[in-house]
Amino acid sequence: MQEKLEEIESAIGYRFKNRKLLEQALTHPSYETTGSYERLEFLGDIVLDAIVGIILFKEYPSAEESFLTDLKSAYVNSRYLNNVGVTLKLERFIRHKSHEVPRLDNFVEGLIGAIFLDSGWKRAEDFVKKTILNKKIEPIKNYKNILSGLSKKHFGIDTHYELVSEKGPPHKRRYVFKARIPGIKYIGRGMGTTKKEAHMQAAKDLLQKLSKCKSFSILPD
Amino acid sequence: MQEKLEEIESAIGYRFKNRKLLEQALTHPSYETTGSYERLEFLGDIVLDAIVGIILFKEYPSAEESFLTDLKSAYVNSRYLNNVGVTLKLERFIRHKSHEVPRLDNFVEGLIGAIFLDSGWKRAEDFVKKTILNKKIEPIKNYKNILSGLSKKHFGIDTHYELVSEKGPPHKRRYVFKARIPGIKYIGRGMGTTKKEAHMQAAKDLLQKLSKCKSFSILPD
Repeated sequence: MQEKLEEIESAIGYRFKNRKLLEQALTHPSYETTGSYERLEFLGDIVLDAIVGIILFKEYPSAEESFLTDLKSAYVNSRYLNNVGVTLKLERFIRHKSHEVPRLDNFVEGLIGAIFLDSGWKRAEDFVKKTILNKKIEPIKNYKNILSGLSKKHFGIDTHYELVSEKGPPHKRRYVFKARIPGIKYIGRGMGTTKKEAHMQAAKDLLQKLSKCKSFSILPD
Repeated sequence: MQEKLEEIESAIGYRFKNRKLLEQALTHPSYETTGSYERLEFLGDIVLDAIVGIILFKEYPSAEESFLTDLKSAYVNSRYLNNVGVTLKLERFIRHKSHEVPRLDNFVEGLIGAIFLDSGWKRAEDFVKKTILNKKIEPIKNYKNILSGLSKKHFGIDTHYELVSEKGPPHKRRYVFKARIPGIKYIGRGMGTTKKEAHMQAAKDLLQKLSKCKSFSILPD
């Protein structure tokens, strides 16, 4: 383990004073409940959110709140953070007893929590800048919010989401949802590995269908 | 306005170097879009989350992540923050052009963002300790998560939520949802002013019904 810890330290560019924190950040609950990353992940999640949010707030002094929210989402969502974990090759260092390799986003958040506890805000911020904010990416549009606002404004009612199907084993679930606005004939459909993702895709689909309809030329792009 | 600003400063126990920030934090988007609290609220929301989360993490060194999450929710949810705004008598100081007095939680978050920008983390933390963390409160149990975990574990499928009804004008909406687990005869019902609240109540109701059933004696309290 000792050698591995040194290797991961050089991969993430940070040397721990207290290596127990690093070990904990790399331990999945399936391996060991008490010494797992769960508390560190709680901490890392909120610290990451604040670091990214504060940096974006300053970087875009005239951007609207919705742009900041969407851009923050793009950097802190689980899919993006999982990719950060892949880039850092965390798979080689983590300890778990699951049938499959667990998602890596929680380990990334655990590492942020561990660095924050070990050395404070500034070093956690350095890590976030170097590994997460190091790419320019597009904001993730929250199609559900856009559709919801539109639906309430024009029809006085919110969008409804209904589960169409749910398939596959627990770790590879596929959800299909439909989105509809009561009284409107168009229906949006979306698929995703989480309900949230399926809702979002269904909202996006419905927005696209509505935008092709002449009476909705007021719709945003 | 000048007098009012001094009054609010003494009410919140913080004197601004840059009073423009205070004015902005007290301005609803209905009054003025460009100079409203929206960006400050974005900042205050994440700073508040981090301040509360870090304090609770240290205060409860052996608590599980789920306890920390539930206790943080209890302090940062919109209902609680709205009450903080009522206690601070923010209603007397805010500027808006809505038909009704707007919710006060967003102003509270705006104030936190404004103090953070004006003086940094430490002073924002002082304000949060004095006005938000000054009461001992119970964690808010996330019944949706509890039910979802249980449903997946015992039945290999997630809970479904269906809208039963949606009534009332936009600013006083009442949602009723039902929660059910496919293949299980019990149904939970919940009402709320937001969908989230209605889901949560429906999950709570279904959990209570399941806990009365002998075959589910494994259920948590």
